[in-house]
Amino acid sequence: MAKRIRIARRVVAESDRLAAELAERFREAGVFVANLMSSPGSGKTSLLEETARRLAADLRMAVIEGDLATDRDARRIKRAGIPSCQINTGGGCHLSARQVLDALQEFQLEALDVLFIENVGNLVCPAEFDLGERRRVVLASTPEGDDKPIKYPVAFHKAHCVVLNKIDLLAATDFSLEDFRRYVRGVNPAVPILELSCRTGEGLEGWLDWVRRERAALE
Amino acid sequence: MAKRIRIARRVVAESDRLAAELAERFREAGVFVANLMSSPGSGKTSLLEETARRLAADLRMAVIEGDLATDRDARRIKRAGIPSCQINTGGGCHLSARQVLDALQEFQLEALDVLFIENVGNLVCPAEFDLGERRRVVLASTPEGDDKPIKYPVAFHKAHCVVLNKIDLLAATDFSLEDFRRYVRGVNPAVPILELSCRTGEGLEGWLDWVRRERAALE
Repeated sequence: MAKRIRIARRVVAESDRLAAELAERFREAGVFVANLMSSPGSGKTSLLEETARRLAADLRMAVIEGDLATDRDARRIKRAGIPSCQINTGGGCHLSARQVLDALQEFQLEALDVLFIENVGNLVCPAEFDLGERRRVVLASTPEGDDKPIKYPVAFHKAHCVVLNKIDLLAATDFSLEDFRRYVRGVNPAVPILELSCRTGEGLEGWLDWVRRERAALE
Repeated sequence: MAKRIRIARRVVAESDRLAAELAERFREAGVFVANLMSSPGSGKTSLLEETARRLAADLRMAVIEGDLATDRDARRIKRAGIPSCQINTGGGCHLSARQVLDALQEFQLEALDVLFIENVGNLVCPAEFDLGERRRVVLASTPEGDDKPIKYPVAFHKAHCVVLNKIDLLAATDFSLEDFRRYVRGVNPAVPILELSCRTGEGLEGWLDWVRRERAALE
């Protein structure tokens, strides 16, 4: 057991070292990097598609897509008009700093204002792995139920921004906005909570403002 | 690296040994055991609540609940009228055979017809760990999108039964039933696909029949 713990520590140390290297590369290039996490199907790719369509005139953006399989998400992002690169993890349950480092060869970092990393759809494991990002964004969506912040507290606790998507489906579900906000506050008292619908566009301006502000804060 | 692989193999071997022990205990007790997996919020607990309400007169059932935190799901099951036991994994991304073995102390297995294990909400990691179950059930729900079977192929490939929940929300989403069925068939050609809504009750009879048939097949 002691040997397992020592080896696990070595793996974590290597991962942290690569994450620090990523953070330094992002800082030097002056690019704002956000790591998006959520359950499968909460709408990470939809949010990035809308962001590409509405913000590409103002900011130079790109997306690194993480999925177990397929390049569907990277193709969706490209169709929305910005560069993207697909990482397939095979069975892997989260993106690693090593995978992101390798993916950077696809981009000219200095020519970007914003880089989004869309992690594997998983509300558990991605929260444990630093990818050198400046901000962690956690998405939830109304059909998933309002109790996810207390059932998956680590992801919500570490988030710099919580996006609640699919508010157009509020009336069709038992979701309580009041309970959701209270549960988020319970694990992360000061985090902004942005309520929106990628489908109808409602609330998207708040998210775009957040991205603009975070990007501007780098300078 | 060789040392890491050897140690990883030892951990897997121990997990497989405990899973085999579980399978033997379940077989001896004559209890049908299903392991339910899905994204957070697909409706595993809702399906088990409805199953409890509609089938408890015919079958003696119990539920082992797996969550990172809270005992909300176990309390929901108890309110629906059947025994349940909550496992909290802390940060753990799936239930382990060891955790399930420990939880069995809460039940008299021989007095049960059916035991459901509700795994941690995660469409990736739980698919890798055998819990001695006879059947693996994978849930999806319409708001998550129809492409989950090809984006999370391992879970769907290994499933003995695929449940598509929230068909009451079909009209409010871009979900294509035809594409979903085709994607499931692509990774698991013969698996039954049960389309239902825990909210409206539509299609639930097909699921209850599946449980009854699987239980009866043990005898």
